[in-house]
Amino acid sequence: MKAEIIAVGSELLTPDRLDTNSLFLTEELNKLGIEVLRKTIVGDNSEELSDAFAGALKRVELVISCGGLGPTADDLTRETVADLLGRKLQRDDRILHAIETRFRSLRREMPEINVRQAMVPEGAEVLDNARGTAPGLWIEQGDRVIVLLPGVPKEMRGLFEEAIAPRLARRATGLQLFHRELRVTGLGESHVEQRIAPVYTRYKDVHTTVLSAPGEVQVHLRFWSDDPQQANKTLDEIERGFDIALTDRIFSRDGQALHEVVARELALNNTTIAVAESCTGGLLSQRLTSIAGSSSFFLGGVVCYSNERKTAWADVPPELIATKGAVSPEVAVALADGIRRRVGSALGVGVTGIAGPGGGSEEKPVGTVHIALAHTAGVAERALTLPGDRDAVRWQASQVALDMVRIYLLYGASDGKLSSKAQGRSSKKSTF
Amino acid sequence: MKAEIIAVGSELLTPDRLDTNSLFLTEELNKLGIEVLRKTIVGDNSEELSDAFAGALKRVELVISCGGLGPTADDLTRETVADLLGRKLQRDDRILHAIETRFRSLRREMPEINVRQAMVPEGAEVLDNARGTAPGLWIEQGDRVIVLLPGVPKEMRGLFEEAIAPRLARRATGLQLFHRELRVTGLGESHVEQRIAPVYTRYKDVHTTVLSAPGEVQVHLRFWSDDPQQANKTLDEIERGFDIALTDRIFSRDGQALHEVVARELALNNTTIAVAESCTGGLLSQRLTSIAGSSSFFLGGVVCYSNERKTAWADVPPELIATKGAVSPEVAVALADGIRRRVGSALGVGVTGIAGPGGGSEEKPVGTVHIALAHTAGVAERALTLPGDRDAVRWQASQVALDMVRIYLLYGASDGKLSSKAQGRSSKKSTF
Repeated sequence: MKAEIIAVGSELLTPDRLDTNSLFLTEELNKLGIEVLRKTIVGDNSEELSDAFAGALKRVELVISCGGLGPTADDLTRETVADLLGRKLQRDDRILHAIETRFRSLRREMPEINVRQAMVPEGAEVLDNARGTAPGLWIEQGDRVIVLLPGVPKEMRGLFEEAIAPRLARRATGLQLFHRELRVTGLGESHVEQRIAPVYTRYKDVHTTVLSAPGEVQVHLRFWSDDPQQANKTLDEIERGFDIALTDRIFSRDGQALHEVVARELALNNTTIAVAESCTGGLLSQRLTSIAGSSSFFLGGVVCYSNERKTAWADVPPELIATKGAVSPEVAVALADGIRRRVGSALGVGVTGIAGPGGGSEEKPVGTVHIALAHTAGVAERALTLPGDRDAVRWQASQVALDMVRIYLLYGASDGKLSSKAQGRSSKKSTF
Repeated sequence: MKAEIIAVGSELLTPDRLDTNSLFLTEELNKLGIEVLRKTIVGDNSEELSDAFAGALKRVELVISCGGLGPTADDLTRETVADLLGRKLQRDDRILHAIETRFRSLRREMPEINVRQAMVPEGAEVLDNARGTAPGLWIEQGDRVIVLLPGVPKEMRGLFEEAIAPRLARRATGLQLFHRELRVTGLGESHVEQRIAPVYTRYKDVHTTVLSAPGEVQVHLRFWSDDPQQANKTLDEIERGFDIALTDRIFSRDGQALHEVVARELALNNTTIAVAESCTGGLLSQRLTSIAGSSSFFLGGVVCYSNERKTAWADVPPELIATKGAVSPEVAVALADGIRRRVGSALGVGVTGIAGPGGGSEEKPVGTVHIALAHTAGVAERALTLPGDRDAVRWQASQVALDMVRIYLLYGASDGKLSSKAQGRSSKKSTF
């Protein structure tokens, strides 16, 4: 079964408001094995509304709308749909009574305009709304189903769960959605695509999407099937293929962000960490501490923007800064090593770079970042040239730093992978 | 001129992703006097895509799409639109060269599949994308304009501002949208509404929206007019009314975030700052340093999660922590004062609290946060009980800390407003 969602409301066509109801609806519909083929957002305008419903009814069996069921003159969904389907509107005294009772319980009088909410297209099934005044409507026309829901999220959700989901479950047949999400860092979108295409193109029924996000690439696998065992077996197979194609570049298989994965690994390994960051300005500390319970592994962080602070807080020798420059592999290593010793943590991370937009030079352009990870057996260091603006450079630098910690926790210090495999494209050198 | 927006991407039809590009586009189109009549969200499916474009082209003069211009096999917008318009795709060597150059500057090789991004429908105008590999396309067909933009928000915005807006400005006529945005902190949505409603309800033609955002409230004024002078006069009048109703709670009139406002004021006042944060875990440092040039006022920050670090980095006496507890007004004051002295900055901020979900008690529930601001004449302190989850508590704490700095820069230390006015609802006590 295929569906479309129509979100109704002129406010959804302004820059201030976004239709979020459809996220809930999509998730619930998918659970029932119903695929959403399109979402349309229209204003409170009967011509537009009518056109949107007519188009959707041509394409799919199920059309669900949210909004436009209120009592005011700009709420037009009921009237428009009745008209489109060639049905008359009739007053339903049971609804009217329920609305009156609701107002009375709130010690208010029912405004005359609310009578409109008791008007129902002929033959429609009325779905009681315990959370508001507008009832939902379930309308069948030939083999099509039209569901009208109010736009208030709480009312829409309540009605969907109580009245719509059970009705749809009875109608929907067979197919269920099986979904996997893999996240990858250290490779661009096209490189990921190039490596995994030979795997996924062999599975015609599985829909693969490769999405670029800041500092990472997300790969989604979606498979509609009526056989859970077979579906999971197929997806497992593809995932194994991806593992080989992407080696250790997959950091998450359950939608977790990189800092969540690293935090979990640090906690599981009883490994403590401290951070000395310059160009990332606290972002790395903030990400590591954004997880509950982070105090068990995060011992402390310093944001040392100035040379003076680098020396005062992480014991970076002033001569080193003077000879090598604040943005240099040597200073990154000194920061990592210094903060680790100062705080007494197992790991120390040092980040120094030029986030821009100013501060770049020919030799060290904006985006130049040096990251070091000090551990029990030495220090790993990576030199990067990161693209994008200030925010992008800072975010990607934090991704690389977190990935270095992840790889260290995966292989330990003895393995060369820390420097050679991680983010191959930008690694210029590394020291241990 | 009327427009429709088509957001392309199967990921936008899942519960994981929301189309947010259309918010920016709607805002920019409105500024140009172009109304958005519909937004459609379709997957990477050429039949659906073709149907969506065909429908939109029947209804409106301008159709803008975002997404589906990437290099991978599921990026179908270029091909589908060329097909729909009956135009052939041709390779544009200038684009190909630009993409190759871009990869080279990032020290990476261009994957073969990126060649697809150099394919252009006959007669289309190519719009260079300085931020990514997919160029934008401007296609005129009869009296219709079709604009294809990449889905990556930064690239889409850049292209719109540099290439699309000027072209549309030349075509669009008539009414113009005048828009003001005021941002308020320290008052809830209903309080803002209650205070400003008596002002804005007197202006029937001006559309006012009050929106709640994390740690702030945004008030939008929108006025469609063909008379810029009159429009601005009216909006000025309303803004003056809001100023009186909201006193110093308005922190931004140009869409700037609170940390941007504070950073600008610190720079303008030649005032330096240092930060010692516990529960915000680096968020405050990160926000203060997210602005270019922040090294001129941000001298350093420490994230001292443990008691030991509070003492080592901000000279908080261990006895104080033992007697008052790490989450206490006294420790917040000691952190602020300690970091200020250590770093030698004009201002010092200390933040300590319980972000949750664990760590709360009956006496100090989750959301308990103490924030102190040390300055030349003493220390201001605020005690808060903040609602919401870990992220919400951390974000709001950073908002209050930034607002304390803003108010200090506005009135100086001599004025009582620092403690009495800021976020009245949650202020339990304050010391100077």
